[in-house]
Amino acid sequence: MPTPTPSRIDLAAHLARVRQRAPLVHNITNLVAMNSMANVLLAIGASPAMVHAREEAAEFAAIADALTLNIGTLSPHWVEAMDEAAEAARLTGKPWVLDPVAVGATAYRRTTAARLLERLPTVVRGNASEIIALEAGGPGGRGVDSSDPAEAAEQAATRLARRVGCVVAVTGEVDLVTDGRRLARVRGGHPLMPRVTTLGCALTGVVAAFLVGAEDPFEATVAALACYGAAGQGAGQGARGPGSFAVAFLDALHTLEGDALDALPPLEFHDAT
Amino acid sequence: MPTPTPSRIDLAAHLARVRQRAPLVHNITNLVAMNSMANVLLAIGASPAMVHAREEAAEFAAIADALTLNIGTLSPHWVEAMDEAAEAARLTGKPWVLDPVAVGATAYRRTTAARLLERLPTVVRGNASEIIALEAGGPGGRGVDSSDPAEAAEQAATRLARRVGCVVAVTGEVDLVTDGRRLARVRGGHPLMPRVTTLGCALTGVVAAFLVGAEDPFEATVAALACYGAAGQGAGQGARGPGSFAVAFLDALHTLEGDALDALPPLEFHDAT
Amino acid sequence: MPTPTPSRIDLAAHLARVRQRAPLVHNITNLVAMNSMANVLLAIGASPAMVHAREEAAEFAAIADALTLNIGTLSPHWVEAMDEAAEAARLTGKPWVLDPVAVGATAYRRTTAARLLERLPTVVRGNASEIIALEAGGPGGRGVDSSDPAEAAEQAATRLARRVGCVVAVTGEVDLVTDGRRLARVRGGHPLMPRVTTLGCALTGVVAAFLVGAEDPFEATVAALACYGAAGQGAGQGARGPGSFAVAFLDALHTLEGDALDALPPLEFHDAT
Repeated sequence: MPTPTPSRIDLAAHLARVRQRAPLVHNITNLVAMNSMANVLLAIGASPAMVHAREEAAEFAAIADALTLNIGTLSPHWVEAMDEAAEAARLTGKPWVLDPVAVGATAYRRTTAARLLERLPTVVRGNASEIIALEAGGPGGRGVDSSDPAEAAEQAATRLARRVGCVVAVTGEVDLVTDGRRLARVRGGHPLMPRVTTLGCALTGVVAAFLVGAEDPFEATVAALACYGAAGQGAGQGARGPGSFAVAFLDALHTLEGDALDALPPLEFHDAT
Repeated sequence: MPTPTPSRIDLAAHLARVRQRAPLVHNITNLVAMNSMANVLLAIGASPAMVHAREEAAEFAAIADALTLNIGTLSPHWVEAMDEAAEAARLTGKPWVLDPVAVGATAYRRTTAARLLERLPTVVRGNASEIIALEAGGPGGRGVDSSDPAEAAEQAATRLARRVGCVVAVTGEVDLVTDGRRLARVRGGHPLMPRVTTLGCALTGVVAAFLVGAEDPFEATVAALACYGAAGQGAGQGARGPGSFAVAFLDALHTLEGDALDALPPLEFHDAT
Repeated sequence: MPTPTPSRIDLAAHLARVRQRAPLVHNITNLVAMNSMANVLLAIGASPAMVHAREEAAEFAAIADALTLNIGTLSPHWVEAMDEAAEAARLTGKPWVLDPVAVGATAYRRTTAARLLERLPTVVRGNASEIIALEAGGPGGRGVDSSDPAEAAEQAATRLARRVGCVVAVTGEVDLVTDGRRLARVRGGHPLMPRVTTLGCALTGVVAAFLVGAEDPFEATVAALACYGAAGQGAGQGARGPGSFAVAFLDALHTLEGDALDALPPLEFHDAT
């Protein structure tokens, strides 16, 4: 019998698990995101490591607790290392998350993302344009910023989740999470979040951290997005622009607790159609 | 009849154009600058993308609205991608900006910069040492920090602008902009700006953003430098050091408007000699 | 007659030397650390440069005042450039510092670190797990975060210092510095420091800056760690989390002076056993 669609999720319990386990998250991410992703992972209580050389990526992926692959700044050696790291994660039973940055923009990204999808990610996280382009396998979208509302990606996300057998998270003003059978909407965050670079890339790492030790990847992904949104909502209160927002966001992740989680708009759960 | 030397520039109109168009700026920049350059471009209202693989750099340059090339952390594959991206920008009529970081320091930088100059950048932006070394084509200057006052680079800048047929911006305590015929001096900024890494590299991206849709690259470059200086001047007011300055600077770029622009010392325009 | 074990060190004099000379520190460091390391070096008064291409690394190392090599994000071309840069530093009499990030985690790191040790670094700086693994030459430790208290690494540090003829700095809650004959303990810092990524990597650059023009590498290393700890201690006072701590830390490095240095717990000096 499949897990029923939940009516609520104990966010504080998911967050406590991350902080208690301090999972080692191995990231082959883009060059823009490396520093901010590491700081975000440290702030939420995880232990980040960036290791991309073919000479050690698979060996490291087998040691780590989870893996993330981000195609934002590719090069041929990295693509090979990503492939081997994903295979090592699969063989050792570690969760891994694919972040198909600007996948619609070039043929190289489409080819690479399609190849990585065959390694069966636990979760795919992207914005609406990226999920639509990834599912379609064709061109679309110019850059790293989304031009489609999250809702428009619902159908693409559901199809992709069913085809790959993974969870798909479409993040935007309202986040959408589906495993092809269940669907959740997460509200929160702040309008300044897209004005700080790589907060989406860093969220991919947070999703990976929440997957470690979780029974249900769908619930863990929803919890990760909700905690991220709660921190963003809190950080936005005193921010004077994207500089002070970014600082307050790391502080908010580090100090996140019940009050901020309770301030989130309620999560919505549905059966996927 | 050539455009006359302006007596003033409508800075607010240039800034409004950037925010309205949100140009996609493609950057092959150095590894130190990537994150801060992306944040600066987002704060001013542009959309940054970092794409350096030969497999996709030219394809992406043809999609983007403008291109910047920065030689701060070279490697052979990047140099080839830069060359192809510059050619793609030229063929599709997109403006592009060359940032010759520490060009005088090594033979590899001199060779690479000379090769990129042949791709006819719209603008070259550097500090005084870099512009002097780039124009001379020989060694000079040790690192990334300038050891010549901006004024000393005036002759080199004018010669370089005439030879290449581009705009040359020499940034420092007083910025200098010339297209070989006209010359502007821009004052503003703050003494803490050179104590925050890669603010010069990020400015190169801002110049590219201002070039998109501008009629006159000389005026657009002056406007970019003036807006940057106005944000720096504002950010310096409450800063306690380079950490708080960097945060306030992003906030100031994001919220930049008439008051801060009016607080700048007046722009100076001359005919170049 | 060997230099006697000091009973105190004039921290302000070491700091003044760095600020007066503004040494050019050449770093081949990991991709996560580049931006924050550059900002830390600028804040303390040094001039950072990141140059990793084989085509120019040795040429640049010969120009710079000091060199640091960090194995955090290796790739084969970088390893070759590191080797050539270390050789150039040795030949031109420049101090250089090795940072063996997560050396115990993979065979590639162990091999690379062992090869670089043969180039005779002036100082090795790492956390306890890293120094133990480096000295043993075998596997150990999972990631970049330390799982051994600094004290446990004392024996490994002393052996390594004697074998290589260098200074070894083991940083953690209490820092340990030894040249195999003398030993110092440095207290200071703040519990938020390990929650900000690459502050350890950046410290490696600060050690290099303090070595330039110093008579005694042991004393200079102790002074670098003490100044860093004093800035951290000061920065922690108003921090609300790792975001605001990182900002305050750069401000504190930039404005560091006698009061903050005097607030440090006293340095401890012993003969090594």
